[in-house]
Amino acid sequence: MLLLHRAVAPGLQQAYRLKSTPARLCIRACCTNDSFQPQRSSFTFSGGNSSTRRWRVMGTLLGLGAVLACHDQQCRASQESPRRYTREEVKSHCSPETGVWVTLGSEVFDITEFVDIHPGGASKLMLAAGGPLEPFWALYAVHNQPHVREILAQYKIGELSPDDKAPSILKTSDPYMDDPIRHSALKVNTQCPFNAEPPPELLTENYITPNPIFFTRNHLPVPNVDPDTYRLNVVGPPRGESLCLSLDDLYQFPKHEITVTLQCAGNRRSEMTQFKEVRGLEWSLGAISTARWAGARLCDVLAQAGHQLCETEAHVCFEGLDSDPTGTAYGASIPLARAMDPEAEVLLAYEMNGQPLPRDHGFPVRVVVPGVVGARHVKWLGKVSVEPEESFSHWQRRDYKGFSPSVDWDTVDFDSAPSIQELPIQSAITQPKEGEIIGSGEVTVKGYAWSGGGRAVVRVDVSLDGGLTWQVAELEGEEQRARKAWAWRLWHLQAPLPAGIKELNIVCKAVDESYNVQPDTVAPIWNLRGVLNNAWHRVHVHVAP
Amino acid sequence: MLLLHRAVAPGLQQAYRLKSTPARLCIRACCTNDSFQPQRSSFTFSGGNSSTRRWRVMGTLLGLGAVLACHDQQCRASQESPRRYTREEVKSHCSPETGVWVTLGSEVFDITEFVDIHPGGASKLMLAAGGPLEPFWALYAVHNQPHVREILAQYKIGELSPDDKAPSILKTSDPYMDDPIRHSALKVNTQCPFNAEPPPELLTENYITPNPIFFTRNHLPVPNVDPDTYRLNVVGPPRGESLCLSLDDLYQFPKHEITVTLQCAGNRRSEMTQFKEVRGLEWSLGAISTARWAGARLCDVLAQAGHQLCETEAHVCFEGLDSDPTGTAYGASIPLARAMDPEAEVLLAYEMNGQPLPRDHGFPVRVVVPGVVGARHVKWLGKVSVEPEESFSHWQRRDYKGFSPSVDWDTVDFDSAPSIQELPIQSAITQPKEGEIIGSGEVTVKGYAWSGGGRAVVRVDVSLDGGLTWQVAELEGEEQRARKAWAWRLWHLQAPLPAGIKELNIVCKAVDESYNVQPDTVAPIWNLRGVLNNAWHRVHVHVAP
Repeated sequence: MLLLHRAVAPGLQQAYRLKSTPARLCIRACCTNDSFQPQRSSFTFSGGNSSTRRWRVMGTLLGLGAVLACHDQQCRASQESPRRYTREEVKSHCSPETGVWVTLGSEVFDITEFVDIHPGGASKLMLAAGGPLEPFWALYAVHNQPHVREILAQYKIGELSPDDKAPSILKTSDPYMDDPIRHSALKVNTQCPFNAEPPPELLTENYITPNPIFFTRNHLPVPNVDPDTYRLNVVGPPRGESLCLSLDDLYQFPKHEITVTLQCAGNRRSEMTQFKEVRGLEWSLGAISTARWAGARLCDVLAQAGHQLCETEAHVCFEGLDSDPTGTAYGASIPLARAMDPEAEVLLAYEMNGQPLPRDHGFPVRVVVPGVVGARHVKWLGKVSVEPEESFSHWQRRDYKGFSPSVDWDTVDFDSAPSIQELPIQSAITQPKEGEIIGSGEVTVKGYAWSGGGRAVVRVDVSLDGGLTWQVAELEGEEQRARKAWAWRLWHLQAPLPAGIKELNIVCKAVDESYNVQPDTVAPIWNLRGVLNNAWHRVHVHVAP
Repeated sequence: MLLLHRAVAPGLQQAYRLKSTPARLCIRACCTNDSFQPQRSSFTFSGGNSSTRRWRVMGTLLGLGAVLACHDQQCRASQESPRRYTREEVKSHCSPETGVWVTLGSEVFDITEFVDIHPGGASKLMLAAGGPLEPFWALYAVHNQPHVREILAQYKIGELSPDDKAPSILKTSDPYMDDPIRHSALKVNTQCPFNAEPPPELLTENYITPNPIFFTRNHLPVPNVDPDTYRLNVVGPPRGESLCLSLDDLYQFPKHEITVTLQCAGNRRSEMTQFKEVRGLEWSLGAISTARWAGARLCDVLAQAGHQLCETEAHVCFEGLDSDPTGTAYGASIPLARAMDPEAEVLLAYEMNGQPLPRDHGFPVRVVVPGVVGARHVKWLGKVSVEPEESFSHWQRRDYKGFSPSVDWDTVDFDSAPSIQELPIQSAITQPKEGEIIGSGEVTVKGYAWSGGGRAVVRVDVSLDGGLTWQVAELEGEEQRARKAWAWRLWHLQAPLPAGIKELNIVCKAVDESYNVQPDTVAPIWNLRGVLNNAWHRVHVHVAP
């Protein structure tokens, strides 16, 4: 947060460099002085929530001058004897109405009037409102610079009371008491087990999702695994020997690295709920994230254990080290054919974006099954075995399956539907947000698109009129490899708006390399568990006069 | 046609066997005598267009008696001195209004009153109206029995004029003059090149489509290849040697047999045209068929030529022996990765349903690429080569691609879209037909479902109310192999109808093992070439009071 490009503050010399910088940045002038009329400059910056209240900087000098002048006017309290505030007081200042306060270390800042000139966009800064800045500055290291601190200093209003310690909500009897600390930007669905997603503003800010805001789907408390004593049990074939692999043993296998998008089957469930009630976590559109994973290939480990791809319809079953009070571990399985296919690149991953796996994401080892629903990427992996049937786990056989809209809890037969493996084509709009008021003139629409099974995204269509007419969005980043497109494509569309238009019904739909498309509406794919919602994503916004 | 079970005519002794026969047959009593009240018997027969005007046989004896009595009443002309008719006259009798005439050899029959009691259903018999029965009897060999001929003899009204020869539409200068004779049941889209599909009544009558009515998609005249001098040129890798394979050489490779559904990218294009004009053949829902193919595996042949699966994004290019007046052959390509994958089962096929390939289907050798659009299954195969790029053929690069609805012929950029390879999930209703009047009480809905890429069909939902509520159809035949489901599933739904209902808006939609679904409507997937129509299939019917 407080995403401030290094070029903004230091003035003229650096400002000139902006023309060639790839970073796109939206500076919103805060002045109400009528003589400051924002106009298009030859180097307009957009980024973050730029369509919300789009402003253009007339010229860098004037713009920066205006911004800095504002800072001076708003500067207060920093030289006074510091007032003391509790965390509770800070927390209550989290909206334009109450004022927007944040903390950094023990210092408290009232940044209400800075929100609208935050170069990263107001909505991103508001994610930190009422709490500490550190988690966001850790995400966006650009903030860790003297001139950013200088700007912030001008908004200081006091300090945290020295006797107000960070509250602990943990109870010693709580099986979740040992769960890790999470990033405060995450939108929490349930605390125990922890299920949370990044907000749309951050979700597509980076092609690679930073570890702290990668969506988290836990079914049970997070186990606290000692990496020194950790062992992975790989059951051998009949009359063969099993492997008992330490982390060091796993490191001996060739290290394989791939970028893979994980998506929960329940992503976008909340839209299904709007049509008719379902059972499940109320995921918005953020139960999807992308990371660079590294580890041993499952096929190499299975081969070392003596397994071969036979003709039978065998399955590779995974068991986690997380378990419920009865001792039942989380479990899932994938077909042996996929597990043994080197081209399918199934990993026993021990690194996520160059770091050891975070505890919430399976430390020390998790399965990564490219192109397959998140539920099969078993975390805290304890055991791998090859079985003639799918895993008997609840989550394999009695959950994560799709049904006809006609099926209800009285008639559902879980054996009648296959467990979800590959997911269908998906896309969603992360900007603008539902109900937002955007500026007139033009709109920037952003989002993600991804398909299961390694199928590349070949096109994203965007409509501004509810699906009557369509424009083709620009896909960002590299071309995907056909049949091995494990990671999402981010996309955007910049489109002029007709004068006088008052609202937009924005819709997106993607197409994959098999020319699979998304269904128009939610109702015909509604299912009692609320999984597999890949209907067109729709966002309604108002256009400022 | 005149599909009459062998048990119907010979009477009591055989009739008793019906209880155990698997064949399902619908006998419609033709009597208008009120005393003949059709009722359910313990062995009801249904088949063909049984839902149209459903009748039940009260008892076999009574039923057969009624049928045969009708035949006696209707018998006429057969003993009289034969009248002479031209083929033109026969052809003009092709509807209930004009009377329904057919020929067998030189004999002419007025079967107007038999149409409704045809055990195979009226609509199937009407396919032969105005023409010869032989093509249909060849398809349904059950007709070639004395008692069927006896029944037919009762409807004889005369003979064809001996000087009225079958018309020849061929001209000696016509490049298509050497095209083969086709089955008259095929619905012809274009004669030259020949493009035709089986009618819905026949399409899903059998899991395996009989060769004579397998949909035909030719781009050029059919080459007449001498099997003795035929050679397949398989270009070797750089510094390797090429193969020049005779048919006998091909037979030396292990013979591989698989059941594969082929579908044209333009299947169901006519529905797209209804929304907005497109360029392409007006396929109804029959540009899809299924056969048992046998031949050499392409991977074996490529391996013998010295090719290996390298890391590059190479393609295997195919050239047909069919060519246009400039000598340009039909061509297409598939990725090398698919060609070299034994599990993808790409064939150089020389047999179709146990027979040498018919000329219209590529005699003597065609490519069969399971799970991939028909356009890549190159017929009359002359050359195979491995190239760094896709085929430069018009049909690879300037056709068979999907675009956004916003793209028109002024803005289309064929390089911007990938050539169609795998096709998306598809399903359609073959019974009842659009506009049909069905009986009250219950409805039987039949159709097919298939997905590309070997993705199994896991569910077909059917709605009778335009998509508001859904019922799950029964999938017929064997379970499909996951990831290797190359052939379609036929399906049916038998559903009671509310009393007094006057019309049905029947809809079907299928789901594949990746939980891909069909889009609700045509307009958002409309494209200028009219390909890839897999929107819900909709049929509107009236219910008889």
